[in-house]
Amino acid sequence: MLISICRAVVTCLPLLWLASVTDGVPDPAKRELLMREETFRQTGGGVALTAAEQKLDAHLRGLKEKEMAAAQFPPAMHFFKAKPLIQKSPIFKLLQQMPKGGALHVHSSSLVSVEWLVKNVTYRPHCYICFTWDNSVRFLFSDRQPFPRWDCFYWQLLETLRAKIGDAAGFDNSLIQHLTLVTVDPDGEYPSQDVVWEKFEKVFIATAGLITHAPVLREYLYKGLAELHLDNVMYLELRSGLSRTYELDGTVHDKAWILKTFQEVTKKFKAGHPDFLGARIIISVHRALEVPAVKAAVKEAIQLQKEFPDVVAGFDLVGREDSGRNLWYFREALSLPADLGVTLPYFFHAGETDSEGTDVDQNILDALLFNTTRIGHGYALAHHPLAKEMSRKRNVAVELCPISNQVLKLVSDLRNHPAAVLMSEGHPMVISSDDPSLFGTTGLSYDFYEAFVGIGGLKANLGTLKELSVNSIRYSSLPAHLKEAGYAMWKRKWDAFISAHS
Amino acid sequence: MLISICRAVVTCLPLLWLASVTDGVPDPAKRELLMREETFRQTGGGVALTAAEQKLDAHLRGLKEKEMAAAQFPPAMHFFKAKPLIQKSPIFKLLQQMPKGGALHVHSSSLVSVEWLVKNVTYRPHCYICFTWDNSVRFLFSDRQPFPRWDCFYWQLLETLRAKIGDAAGFDNSLIQHLTLVTVDPDGEYPSQDVVWEKFEKVFIATAGLITHAPVLREYLYKGLAELHLDNVMYLELRSGLSRTYELDGTVHDKAWILKTFQEVTKKFKAGHPDFLGARIIISVHRALEVPAVKAAVKEAIQLQKEFPDVVAGFDLVGREDSGRNLWYFREALSLPADLGVTLPYFFHAGETDSEGTDVDQNILDALLFNTTRIGHGYALAHHPLAKEMSRKRNVAVELCPISNQVLKLVSDLRNHPAAVLMSEGHPMVISSDDPSLFGTTGLSYDFYEAFVGIGGLKANLGTLKELSVNSIRYSSLPAHLKEAGYAMWKRKWDAFISAHS
Ligand SMILES: [Zn+2]
Ligand SMILES: [Zn+2]
Repeated sequence: MLISICRAVVTCLPLLWLASVTDGVPDPAKRELLMREETFRQTGGGVALTAAEQKLDAHLRGLKEKEMAAAQFPPAMHFFKAKPLIQKSPIFKLLQQMPKGGALHVHSSSLVSVEWLVKNVTYRPHCYICFTWDNSVRFLFSDRQPFPRWDCFYWQLLETLRAKIGDAAGFDNSLIQHLTLVTVDPDGEYPSQDVVWEKFEKVFIATAGLITHAPVLREYLYKGLAELHLDNVMYLELRSGLSRTYELDGTVHDKAWILKTFQEVTKKFKAGHPDFLGARIIISVHRALEVPAVKAAVKEAIQLQKEFPDVVAGFDLVGREDSGRNLWYFREALSLPADLGVTLPYFFHAGETDSEGTDVDQNILDALLFNTTRIGHGYALAHHPLAKEMSRKRNVAVELCPISNQVLKLVSDLRNHPAAVLMSEGHPMVISSDDPSLFGTTGLSYDFYEAFVGIGGLKANLGTLKELSVNSIRYSSLPAHLKEAGYAMWKRKWDAFISAHS
Repeated sequence: MLISICRAVVTCLPLLWLASVTDGVPDPAKRELLMREETFRQTGGGVALTAAEQKLDAHLRGLKEKEMAAAQFPPAMHFFKAKPLIQKSPIFKLLQQMPKGGALHVHSSSLVSVEWLVKNVTYRPHCYICFTWDNSVRFLFSDRQPFPRWDCFYWQLLETLRAKIGDAAGFDNSLIQHLTLVTVDPDGEYPSQDVVWEKFEKVFIATAGLITHAPVLREYLYKGLAELHLDNVMYLELRSGLSRTYELDGTVHDKAWILKTFQEVTKKFKAGHPDFLGARIIISVHRALEVPAVKAAVKEAIQLQKEFPDVVAGFDLVGREDSGRNLWYFREALSLPADLGVTLPYFFHAGETDSEGTDVDQNILDALLFNTTRIGHGYALAHHPLAKEMSRKRNVAVELCPISNQVLKLVSDLRNHPAAVLMSEGHPMVISSDDPSLFGTTGLSYDFYEAFVGIGGLKANLGTLKELSVNSIRYSSLPAHLKEAGYAMWKRKWDAFISAHS
């Protein structure tokens, strides 16, 4: 067992509150007990804190009270505006130091901060750029002048263009704008979910040319692990479509090559960082595909998992749920593993929507019916009492990505995030970053901040952080023995963190 | 029994979902059953609809799908901007026609639309106005020039001032601005909860001089009942502080006078409108008071309820929870009835806050410990699993006031209102308007629209509306025989509504 959390009190005191309706002033001791009982139910409520942890917890509470009383409360603001405030927050600084376990919901196209892509990658030789008719960009590394493509006629060598323009800083800034959602005026620039999703898809396409270049990909993945490690994250499960990777001369690599590269990079990183646990891939395809294509992708994922059992964790469908096809639409494809008598763990995005009661909203139940291992976002889960029970009883954790949900306009003030309900009930949950580079974050500390200060409110305490952190190992796709090893590794880090901060 | 809602399916199928994890495509019939089971749990999920009701329900669903697909979705917008769209909505027009039962959470100072106050009341003779240093207004009816007061030095006869200014329409508009929160730029004008609450309190003080004038009060109350009746609301529970009422010569009336007046007005209104059920008062005092003052108020409320058992429903504390004193602070005062061996039903505002885990947030549990009959707002209830269970088992309904919560900046997009969780679980709930005149609404149709289209989403159906409507009688403070009579009256209206619209 990772952490033995006794939830017995919950069942020991079932009738306590029935007895507590009294005449006169309610018994303060009973009131106290009820309050403790409610605290006990929340995420981390059953975690026993050591004396040193209690000290740090009291300190954290003091800091949180101060931030809640300030004129500007970061979780109530758009992250793009809140970010500078968060960076100054002593809670955030503590969270950066805290070992946070693993990042279980990150997409490969947005793993590494954009600054590196622009300041490093686009400065490499043979990098071409092209501006599309709809004001987007494409990149391509090539040892010769690239051919015009349907979306891009005029390719220029970036080196030449940058020299011509002169203002390299300004130009690089404009490239950064093309590669992230970050803006000083998020409300003005993204008036609706449609607009922000449109930009979102644009950015993905723009980034692709850079990171699917084979030599870049290798460094990109390494850099991604390094950024996580720097933020005290020790493990990664990366959702990736395994897009074709190309060399300077135009030759392309297949998916197996990417998995092998990923394996090698991870191995190399672990060799240099023995306190890093590892990384795996969740193969994902876009939900815009037709059933036969998804069927083929599922078959391929089964095959790749057989070939790379250490690397491939399972399968997922990605892309905006509200405008994409729902899981039930793909039922024939998704039942393929069972039909073939093999296992392919699912990690479905589900319920990333505000549209209650629609077909999309139904994805949550269907993800569970298809036996998903975790639920990506599960934003709508709190509105589905039955699915919530199923998810809880089967120990299917929700991957909570607060900043993503806010930037993609599901919720503005994060105190209203429905995960507050799940957290108050101690629902299985992990924190992740979804698309860090697009939102201008690295690591998990920003999302932990929003979850801990905004969604959890004053109720969330160090026990909450501890449970959320351990959860990322508990609910990972790792086999049992690696979970044990990972937990032991995490525990050493945690103890060191506590003794350094109490 | 008002409506017999069988919740048995919930317990009949407890292991259904455990059995439904299958290999291959999940059994569509089982999936269907699970979806039905989840629908069954929601507010109104257990209401059996007649053939005619089903027809109207299908029509409503079609309308809702259309509104959800439109470029601008009213519940996602600030009400002040959404209002013109809502007025054009065919769903809203249907809701206006629908018998909605009673309004159980309305404050007396904001019962009647401001247009009437300005266009009618301020045009009466002897009405004086005074502008305060902080750009607020005061009104006073007087048969002589009023004395200067600490907050107001220079009183002018409104009639004279209006004639002097000339532009009566423009002037009246400026008065309306003083008496409501309505503005074309809510986000700019109210950047924070603090700012909007400050204006809120200002408006209350400004209105007081008009509506505490005895002859105005009488008409005001009548007009209030008429506006509700016009919106197909048949019953009212009005929170009132019973502020001292004055005559033209400065003589003042006590609280008993106000209750008597209220009783007379209600009687007169019912005589003219036999399909109106009645109105009661919940005596409320401001939570800014000290314990001894609240003690005195509780004592007085006990006495007034003895004198006016038909009128006085109970007691409440009002004013902004986040900056006021919490219920536990007043525990000595609130236990007075029990100490004296008498009963005084409570209808506490509780949990009207975003600040999770604070003392204020604790009000919900304390309201229940003090045996509250209903919970005003209960915005934070969904984040309190234990309190939620208590409230449900004891049948303590939440008074949901969506537009109030949005205007007072607890939530921006109403799809994120935590009551969506409560609704999905069928938590006891009624819909009300809180401070209609401040928000620019009359009746309950606007709030029903937001609850039905925004909070309930596509899942909410005609059964939801029916249950919400009946709930307002079921959870009213009326004695059993009047509930029965009220239900019978409602049922006749409902059946007429259905046959007119199917
Ligand atoms: Zn994602
Ligand atoms: Zn109220």
